[in-house]
Amino acid sequence: MIIKGKATSLDIAHLAGVSQPTVSRALRGSPSVNPETRRRIMAIARELNYKVDKNASNLRAQQSGTLALLFFEDPTPDDSLINPFFHSMLGSITRACARRGYDLLVSFQQLSTNWHADFGDTHKADGIILLGYGDYLESESKLQRLVAQGTHFVRWGAALPDEPGVSIGCDNFQGGHDITAHLLNRGRCRIAFLGHASDHYPEFFERYRGYAGALRKARLKPDPALQADAITTEQSGYQATCALLAAGRPFDALFAASDLIALGAMKALREHGRRIPEDVAVAGFDDIAMAGLTQPGLSTVQQDTKQAGEVLVDSLIRLILREPVESRNLPVKLVLRGSTATG
Amino acid sequence: MIIKGKATSLDIAHLAGVSQPTVSRALRGSPSVNPETRRRIMAIARELNYKVDKNASNLRAQQSGTLALLFFEDPTPDDSLINPFFHSMLGSITRACARRGYDLLVSFQQLSTNWHADFGDTHKADGIILLGYGDYLESESKLQRLVAQGTHFVRWGAALPDEPGVSIGCDNFQGGHDITAHLLNRGRCRIAFLGHASDHYPEFFERYRGYAGALRKARLKPDPALQADAITTEQSGYQATCALLAAGRPFDALFAASDLIALGAMKALREHGRRIPEDVAVAGFDDIAMAGLTQPGLSTVQQDTKQAGEVLVDSLIRLILREPVESRNLPVKLVLRGSTATG
Repeated sequence: MIIKGKATSLDIAHLAGVSQPTVSRALRGSPSVNPETRRRIMAIARELNYKVDKNASNLRAQQSGTLALLFFEDPTPDDSLINPFFHSMLGSITRACARRGYDLLVSFQQLSTNWHADFGDTHKADGIILLGYGDYLESESKLQRLVAQGTHFVRWGAALPDEPGVSIGCDNFQGGHDITAHLLNRGRCRIAFLGHASDHYPEFFERYRGYAGALRKARLKPDPALQADAITTEQSGYQATCALLAAGRPFDALFAASDLIALGAMKALREHGRRIPEDVAVAGFDDIAMAGLTQPGLSTVQQDTKQAGEVLVDSLIRLILREPVESRNLPVKLVLRGSTATG
Repeated sequence: MIIKGKATSLDIAHLAGVSQPTVSRALRGSPSVNPETRRRIMAIARELNYKVDKNASNLRAQQSGTLALLFFEDPTPDDSLINPFFHSMLGSITRACARRGYDLLVSFQQLSTNWHADFGDTHKADGIILLGYGDYLESESKLQRLVAQGTHFVRWGAALPDEPGVSIGCDNFQGGHDITAHLLNRGRCRIAFLGHASDHYPEFFERYRGYAGALRKARLKPDPALQADAITTEQSGYQATCALLAAGRPFDALFAASDLIALGAMKALREHGRRIPEDVAVAGFDDIAMAGLTQPGLSTVQQDTKQAGEVLVDSLIRLILREPVESRNLPVKLVLRGSTATG
């Protein structure tokens, strides 16, 4: 095909067999065009020596082509400072950015009090991905400020209707429900819950609600004496379990709101001579790499970190391109190992 | 003190009680000035409303104030793509960059064939930190090209005299020596080595040399039949151990060149009914978080990831500021757990 004069996006659309708006979206790197189509469009544009129209490219031109990933600095026994669950998201976020043609800056949320000024005003990054937040109620005003400032951001968290901005999370309720139903199926009926169950920790709270829902379905009442607060560290899980054991209320299973909590719980149970799973079945949440290494292996609720990273990046780019984006929960699945085997 | 006319760096030096070159170094953010002194100098400069001299700041002005961290995409059973040993370095690298006023870009080495063009020519980053490399002999030509192009880079690896550029590593020889001496002290004398011992994997090779050196000191000869190749994955450690067991040459201890290899080895030993440490003592290298979780816990050689991250960042910034930098090895220490207890 010979094109007279300068090639237009309509010419590309014609050759690629797509609509002109699809060509525009592809040229500005929108995730709404599938990668195969985008590659075809880009190849044709290059072949035609097509120069992106100034107006169309204006949006992109004002941008840095960079996303900022801000980890929440967590207490960790080693010096890693990052919750191991987020480690496995880094790889998929990095790859997703590269696939979309964005660079990725990494920093800690605690290193600044004004991310908007750091990344937005200075054109260092077009948007922010937030991983982790500690106490949610303490972080909420910061999120509200980001919304008010018009900063593009997505966060990993509970995708609940009243949270500011766009949140991507996993189906915490379903995960809590399914692992509890599994424990009930294994004949356990005095199931303790380890983890904060309050608005301060909305993801844990949803897992707790799923747990309570499964108990009620089995005509059991959640026993408040079998819920022990814990944040997501081994040490906290260890202490919560010691406290439960000291309180003396019997239990035959533990559902920990995260794998790290479960690891600490397993240590406490062993030290108190309780056999896993014979005396106490143990389940966690996350499926971090360590969950497969304990003896017995830890049954848990797997969050799909690969998909999570991709959805976070795609959602943020859509926000930047002013396309519609909604908070959403990704599906979870049970990974069953020895810690909940029939005792 | 009242300063007539515009304040100079000499005025600041006088007030701070340091030399004028120290003031210059502090103002351009050199790591050779200790943080306390730097803060003092910066405060005085602000107070005097000191404007950095155009010539002095020229170097910094041409720069992006950004470092690029390029992970090597490793085979991992989950989707993390990054060796867990490097996870714990990310936190300290991120903090060290922030402390020095640099942003940090993160990507994978495999995502580009020309990092110099990606980061150097485009002024995206002033220098590159390389973590991981796979087969060293395959990566060497790339390192030589970086040197030839004048790209500022530092890498984590074997700090050997003939490697191109600046390498920061740990004292692999000493680590291999000390953990082997520990196994000998525990009465083990048929110690197998799991890991590639060749120029393709220089860090493993140094660990092997340390192992062989400790054996020779004890008047034992390294037995080539007790060395089995493995790359740093659990699966590789598992397969190497199965092969050793199948070969039938007896051994009462295993020194794995990395913790991941040791984790795979422990799995293979258990499956073959060998008790750890009674039948076979097991030691690893790295001290990743998982090493403390196995039953029994894994004895290993700890690399100081916190110091490593700081030294990598400081060395790279010195290179960028054209200050002298040398490859160096950081000290290691033994972390002893149940896997090498007296059997």
